[in-house]
Amino acid sequence: MSVLVVGSVALDSVRTPNGSVEEALGGSASYFSLSARHFTDVQIVAVVGEDFPPQSRELLVAKGIDVGGLSTQPGRTFRWTGEYGADLSYAKTLATELNVFAAFHPALTPAQRKAETVFLANIDPELQLEVLDQVESPRFVACDTMNYWITSKREALLKVMRRADVCLLNDEEARLLSGDAQVPRAARLLLDQGVKRLLVKKGEHGAMLFGHDERFFCPAYPHEKLVDPTGAGDAFAGGFVGYIDSARTHGALPLRQAMICGTALASLCVEAFSPRRLAEITREEIAERVKVIRTLAHMPDVALD
Amino acid sequence: MSVLVVGSVALDSVRTPNGSVEEALGGSASYFSLSARHFTDVQIVAVVGEDFPPQSRELLVAKGIDVGGLSTQPGRTFRWTGEYGADLSYAKTLATELNVFAAFHPALTPAQRKAETVFLANIDPELQLEVLDQVESPRFVACDTMNYWITSKREALLKVMRRADVCLLNDEEARLLSGDAQVPRAARLLLDQGVKRLLVKKGEHGAMLFGHDERFFCPAYPHEKLVDPTGAGDAFAGGFVGYIDSARTHGALPLRQAMICGTALASLCVEAFSPRRLAEITREEIAERVKVIRTLAHMPDVALD
Repeated sequence: MSVLVVGSVALDSVRTPNGSVEEALGGSASYFSLSARHFTDVQIVAVVGEDFPPQSRELLVAKGIDVGGLSTQPGRTFRWTGEYGADLSYAKTLATELNVFAAFHPALTPAQRKAETVFLANIDPELQLEVLDQVESPRFVACDTMNYWITSKREALLKVMRRADVCLLNDEEARLLSGDAQVPRAARLLLDQGVKRLLVKKGEHGAMLFGHDERFFCPAYPHEKLVDPTGAGDAFAGGFVGYIDSARTHGALPLRQAMICGTALASLCVEAFSPRRLAEITREEIAERVKVIRTLAHMPDVALD
Repeated sequence: MSVLVVGSVALDSVRTPNGSVEEALGGSASYFSLSARHFTDVQIVAVVGEDFPPQSRELLVAKGIDVGGLSTQPGRTFRWTGEYGADLSYAKTLATELNVFAAFHPALTPAQRKAETVFLANIDPELQLEVLDQVESPRFVACDTMNYWITSKREALLKVMRRADVCLLNDEEARLLSGDAQVPRAARLLLDQGVKRLLVKKGEHGAMLFGHDERFFCPAYPHEKLVDPTGAGDAFAGGFVGYIDSARTHGALPLRQAMICGTALASLCVEAFSPRRLAEITREEIAERVKVIRTLAHMPDVALD
């Protein structure tokens, strides 16, 4: 079992009311892989510049992540600078420097083309389609995106979404893409347009899966020690897709279990800056967090005569 | 078993993208009692003016609600006018006419003073304290409030909240009252100030109970046919408090069951304008909605070796 992730590896500068970091390891593929590796093997396909710190690459390798597809190109690594307000609910982007990422075209090796599980992290939907055209017969594909692609490349994005088994969006993105301000109706509209399953991330509230015959709500862990929300969505995706890959099936039951794992990983990720916690947490910590989340929404019988 | 509710009975004019109503039955005590009556007996303590429509009083009576404490005073009934935008997430108040409600001072009869379960709906916290000083030995007290009282009568409100078994607030109110933008920390701060249990209503996302030793998240029903959200919070409170009264205990298990019932009643309430659905729904419809909500967040075991 292994997951192929195609996305960004970046250097992030982040300010929050709790402190800040400069040029720390970031990017969707970094967060995803450091999360998913707790459940399965992970191969990264991404690009960095010549300035990418060797210790960041070594961290990924030390955590068992296959960085054979992490290509180094002449130029600087993708950089992102963002800032959070007091409620830490969303990041204000202060600067984005695409650098080597601007010319990124994922070229999969013959081995990567045989990937059974694929996560298309938030990149240009045309690149996501290039990846889908290269993988031969994936068992499970999940994709993520962002508001920028929804407005600029809507048709390509919808093509990707129709080919994915699960599409991750946050609630604002679901509203924007569907044109409906109410999330359950937004989900219905997207399902009616051929999307198989929509996984709507609601930040501090939780996440909800909308399928044609299935709906599942998993509450977020009610954190009192939130430090840096950067990467929470990709850590969620890592736990979710990593679990599905390890389960080798994506029926209703493993989808629920995978959402709980994703929620646990996201909640652990945000306890420190950057993917630091994802790198250090143990299986026991994950199991404990999973237990707390399951208990939080445990639904007793209600006898109504 | 019976619940005493002290709150407002009003005439509401409401506009939504789905239509509008003029001077329909409204007010926290109306929504609460029409919801709670599905679980237990309800007595209203409130005031209306001479213009209160006889058919509205008759509706309450027909639904088994004790309106002996619904006093008629010279003048006009409390009126509220509000409007919702496309996402139906919150009401913009266009006009409030207190009318006879401005001079309301709840005076309980000897029978009402023996109430075992009390719901202090959203009224001036000084009036809520007057009620608490009149009831003799309630088994269970719940209270609600709004941003206006949080800013104008904070100390009186905190006194009420410390005397209640469960305090209902929405997430914005919890932030405003605590001064902390993150809800789990806001809840902790309020518990540290002597509040026994906080029930944070998160609208479309659900509701979360924060106690000293217990936390429970109940997701909202993902409505695709939301018509008018007016009264959803009071319908929730009615299902919640009504269930607790019928269970005659408020341990961790009945609190969870009560939150599921509150969620079900709120979701049924919003399917039509005014408390129309609360007046017509059957026990079977409630049981069916409870089942859907329980299934929505059913948490399977997750085996992590």
